[in-house]
Amino acid sequence: MGNAIRRIGVLTSGGDAPGMNAAIRAAARTCFHLGIECVGIRRGFNGLINGDDEVLNYSRVSGLTRMGGTMLYSARSAEFRTEAGIEKAVNTCKLLGLDGIVGIGGDGTFRGLHDLADHGIAVIGVPGTIDNDIACSSYTIGYDTACNTAVECIDKLQDTMQSHERCSVVEVMGHRAGHLALYVGLACGATAVLIPEKPVNFEEDVIEPIRRARLSGRTHFMIIVAEGVGSSYDVANKIKEATALDTRVTVLGHIQRGGAPSARDRVTATHMGYSAVMLLASGKTDRVVCMQDDKYIDYDITEALSMKKGLDEDKYTVMRTMIGQHNKV
Amino acid sequence: MGNAIRRIGVLTSGGDAPGMNAAIRAAARTCFHLGIECVGIRRGFNGLINGDDEVLNYSRVSGLTRMGGTMLYSARSAEFRTEAGIEKAVNTCKLLGLDGIVGIGGDGTFRGLHDLADHGIAVIGVPGTIDNDIACSSYTIGYDTACNTAVECIDKLQDTMQSHERCSVVEVMGHRAGHLALYVGLACGATAVLIPEKPVNFEEDVIEPIRRARLSGRTHFMIIVAEGVGSSYDVANKIKEATALDTRVTVLGHIQRGGAPSARDRVTATHMGYSAVMLLASGKTDRVVCMQDDKYIDYDITEALSMKKGLDEDKYTVMRTMIGQHNKV
Amino acid sequence: MGNAIRRIGVLTSGGDAPGMNAAIRAAARTCFHLGIECVGIRRGFNGLINGDDEVLNYSRVSGLTRMGGTMLYSARSAEFRTEAGIEKAVNTCKLLGLDGIVGIGGDGTFRGLHDLADHGIAVIGVPGTIDNDIACSSYTIGYDTACNTAVECIDKLQDTMQSHERCSVVEVMGHRAGHLALYVGLACGATAVLIPEKPVNFEEDVIEPIRRARLSGRTHFMIIVAEGVGSSYDVANKIKEATALDTRVTVLGHIQRGGAPSARDRVTATHMGYSAVMLLASGKTDRVVCMQDDKYIDYDITEALSMKKGLDEDKYTVMRTMIGQHNKV
Amino acid sequence: MGNAIRRIGVLTSGGDAPGMNAAIRAAARTCFHLGIECVGIRRGFNGLINGDDEVLNYSRVSGLTRMGGTMLYSARSAEFRTEAGIEKAVNTCKLLGLDGIVGIGGDGTFRGLHDLADHGIAVIGVPGTIDNDIACSSYTIGYDTACNTAVECIDKLQDTMQSHERCSVVEVMGHRAGHLALYVGLACGATAVLIPEKPVNFEEDVIEPIRRARLSGRTHFMIIVAEGVGSSYDVANKIKEATALDTRVTVLGHIQRGGAPSARDRVTATHMGYSAVMLLASGKTDRVVCMQDDKYIDYDITEALSMKKGLDEDKYTVMRTMIGQHNKV
Repeated sequence: MGNAIRRIGVLTSGGDAPGMNAAIRAAARTCFHLGIECVGIRRGFNGLINGDDEVLNYSRVSGLTRMGGTMLYSARSAEFRTEAGIEKAVNTCKLLGLDGIVGIGGDGTFRGLHDLADHGIAVIGVPGTIDNDIACSSYTIGYDTACNTAVECIDKLQDTMQSHERCSVVEVMGHRAGHLALYVGLACGATAVLIPEKPVNFEEDVIEPIRRARLSGRTHFMIIVAEGVGSSYDVANKIKEATALDTRVTVLGHIQRGGAPSARDRVTATHMGYSAVMLLASGKTDRVVCMQDDKYIDYDITEALSMKKGLDEDKYTVMRTMIGQHNKV
Repeated sequence: MGNAIRRIGVLTSGGDAPGMNAAIRAAARTCFHLGIECVGIRRGFNGLINGDDEVLNYSRVSGLTRMGGTMLYSARSAEFRTEAGIEKAVNTCKLLGLDGIVGIGGDGTFRGLHDLADHGIAVIGVPGTIDNDIACSSYTIGYDTACNTAVECIDKLQDTMQSHERCSVVEVMGHRAGHLALYVGLACGATAVLIPEKPVNFEEDVIEPIRRARLSGRTHFMIIVAEGVGSSYDVANKIKEATALDTRVTVLGHIQRGGAPSARDRVTATHMGYSAVMLLASGKTDRVVCMQDDKYIDYDITEALSMKKGLDEDKYTVMRTMIGQHNKV
Repeated sequence: MGNAIRRIGVLTSGGDAPGMNAAIRAAARTCFHLGIECVGIRRGFNGLINGDDEVLNYSRVSGLTRMGGTMLYSARSAEFRTEAGIEKAVNTCKLLGLDGIVGIGGDGTFRGLHDLADHGIAVIGVPGTIDNDIACSSYTIGYDTACNTAVECIDKLQDTMQSHERCSVVEVMGHRAGHLALYVGLACGATAVLIPEKPVNFEEDVIEPIRRARLSGRTHFMIIVAEGVGSSYDVANKIKEATALDTRVTVLGHIQRGGAPSARDRVTATHMGYSAVMLLASGKTDRVVCMQDDKYIDYDITEALSMKKGLDEDKYTVMRTMIGQHNKV
Repeated sequence: MGNAIRRIGVLTSGGDAPGMNAAIRAAARTCFHLGIECVGIRRGFNGLINGDDEVLNYSRVSGLTRMGGTMLYSARSAEFRTEAGIEKAVNTCKLLGLDGIVGIGGDGTFRGLHDLADHGIAVIGVPGTIDNDIACSSYTIGYDTACNTAVECIDKLQDTMQSHERCSVVEVMGHRAGHLALYVGLACGATAVLIPEKPVNFEEDVIEPIRRARLSGRTHFMIIVAEGVGSSYDVANKIKEATALDTRVTVLGHIQRGGAPSARDRVTATHMGYSAVMLLASGKTDRVVCMQDDKYIDYDITEALSMKKGLDEDKYTVMRTMIGQHNKV
């Protein structure tokens, strides 16, 4: 059949996430299984613009499931946001004879893929970001590893906070979304969790839980702050003022982006990389692989981008129950 | 209201799983929030028979989310399988004034809870087992930690197998179910995965994948065997005979049961412990908290016990694609 | 014999360090073995002043080798620096009948112990600090764990720096001493290491190594800065100006103080806790347990406090060789 | 000068150990710094016999400090033990123009190097083995990582043993030497440690400590057995017979050989790899790099091989004190 897929390009774009390498490997392996050639595009859409690529063979992707980062590098591309940039990218696709592109990243990546689709390139997106803030998918590659990394760091902080009877304020990733902060806060038994989705009554939501915990016998405290909430140093100062506690700030930062991926991220990435190639092979395009209700499905990219993801209100209620806080009405 | 819940017992029973402590803490904290007293029952149903219990207060359950094992101990109870044993347990419930019991464990635990329900004790089950083999729930507390532990051990094995160009045969937990073996095999990029649900054509499913990998440039190999498949030493010997590879067996064993729970297990356990108490508080009984389609719901225990859980066939197909094996018809 | 030791107090003071709990356990277990009673003094010398203590029995110290932090809490005591404070502490020793005190901490702790010795209390110090900056001992409890924690965090950072071809500037602990920074820099293959002991020629010691690495094919870079050197943000800005690299700062902070102690810290702490009690039992006082030339010995506290510890110049030379930098003359 | 070193070969031989890659990198980097070419010899002495080699450049050894295993592969060579084999190896050295060989491994590796020295090849040995059983050096590359890996596994086992009040028997590496078992036993607070260097009175050295611990309130027990002592299953059966405890065996096996090296192993390996090349560059041969009294020195290989390493009797005494056992006379 003339339209059969013979050669697929794979790229990672936007902020990197643990598991991207496993998705690359899975896409490549699925290609090999189907007799399709697989080409790695380096540095996101810049690689399409500049012809920065390498053929991926079995050995090149061997052992990748356990590797953090992305062997194809990732980048944001200003040039790709121009029509001239897109044209260059399309021309590279023609030159290399790429019948399809698998792009792993976030919403920005999907928008870029959609632009390529508009120019006749078959594309499939795979959600990869540690923030889990992609609306179409209940889970995104890298989230589990980032949560575990944050939790392991916070466990260590608990030890030294215990010794010195201090209050720890930990800033975790999440500019617009508090998914990670809430999850991590629940996991480490935080005394309070501050997220951008919920207004904070400082006295009621932070100081009172600290006081109740202290009166119940606890002598050290853990406050989790999503970075989008504002300065964690301000939070710490306000706690210190109100309670006289010795309060210390830790900004986890980029540590949360790295590390060997967890089992869950490796398996999810492998499944999604596989699904992306299977979709291209079956003639689909302009879609994104998603997890919904614990199943792997796919959405039209435009539809996916129009979705909204709210906070998990149940988890928020559970968190407030754990700290003895009645839910807001 | 005369029927209001005033005092709840919590117990862990059957094989322990990382996250059980987080579930105990969450159940206790939810009780405190609702003004209910919480009593820990030690050593599973034996604790109900023998009056082996302790009142849980805020301090006692503080810091538990990160602790592996179960502070309430776990055990199987032969005596509880007799009518006399159940009667003793019911009498202890009466003596202590327990209006409800939260039992964390597997199918055996749920059967025991149902027996108590038959005697008028309100009960709620919470699925906790590293095998993820409870039909009513897509996820069970401890599974994620066990998978990560196995994967971390296998990563280490990969290092030394690489150095010596050996073949590793790793036996992971799973007597009747291959969920963990399949998941772990996908996560670590195994060359073959043997599980009880699928018959093995040794030549086609194990030897040929090794040969194909070798011809593609790989010089060390990882074979994952669920313990229910049979002796991993036999598997190793057959590989050695067929390929002359230096083959080494590792039985991961009880290591998979321990360790600080992963973020996912802490959060799931916290949510389920919370839900169990909320169900009791709302007057429900004889039910088990479950996760289905990524949501927390609850089933009648008898209905839950009658369900069957099959292998995740999609994951099996993905695994076979990764190793270049066509799926069985 | 009238002078036999019958009751020993143990305290931890100053900044906490992983392994302090193992040292407490070892001191207590050695007491039990010798038929001596062991009393835990809480919150450092404050506990002696305020009578904040608890009798330690076998169960209380069971399982402590793996626990980070210090179960006896740690604190600095302003009051103890006054004669009135010391007198109160001495009186508590008399009241409790403490024939000796084991104090685990740094130079400040040893000075406090020496003050007690001046008042006739038998004392032995044990070096515990993650900075390894105690002159009398080549090794201090907690250093190995802190190094491993820093290295694990930096490994994670390497992953994401690789993906984005960035330069990472990591601030590690060490106000006056660069031991930890140098060790960690060697361990993670840093492109440059900045420590307070050595003046920095920024162009020659930081920028040139980055350039040489880039010309040799490396696309991401790791710069380790001891906190005593100055602002790591300044370092990052200067690198960015000189190289146009996307540069990111991570301050590891208190994470380095916590966590389950490494095997080395558990064993060293156990040995030193044991030695401290054995010294008291043999009638010694006013001494500190030290490691020198891989052996456990003890020094007079005053002599120990007068020693100076220089940088390990050999390691510095090795580090510079690794990055292709000729040693300073 | 005519005798200047221009090209050095590096090989790893015998059982692999975490840190070997860091030593390879350090040797290569030191060569580059001195303007010497560095050639990797693969698969130990077999690589010299078969001409299995690759030139190492900056990129090839970049990022190696954190990698477990050995990128040069390791093997034992039967052929090298024959005069014909040695001759082939010497001829390869001549063909490749190798002015010196750095060999990383154990006593067998050093014997092989000495044979090459007898044929006029300059050689330096570096001690790398997880057993720490090389007499000339107080420390060998890989030991610290292996100890930490064993301790982390045992910590996980403690969790599940606690839940079920069981006795764990753990077999750790060590055929002829109990260094690792004793160290690990001290680190994890074992109830008993069985090593080949000390005869065991089972009743007094195993059963009585278990009983004393039980009477002191402990309900789970950890017995560490060096593999050279005999079957850990026999040990478990005897414990079960004597105490009726539910006893479980875990054989840690090859897991102890892998994993990212610890900070200590990375630093030691880097220092030793550096020292080996510096010794060759200064005209030395037939020597082995050693650590003694916390300093890096070097010994004549023949002298090194004649040394004996005894058990650390102090640590043995500390271990027995911890479990309340009087030392043997």
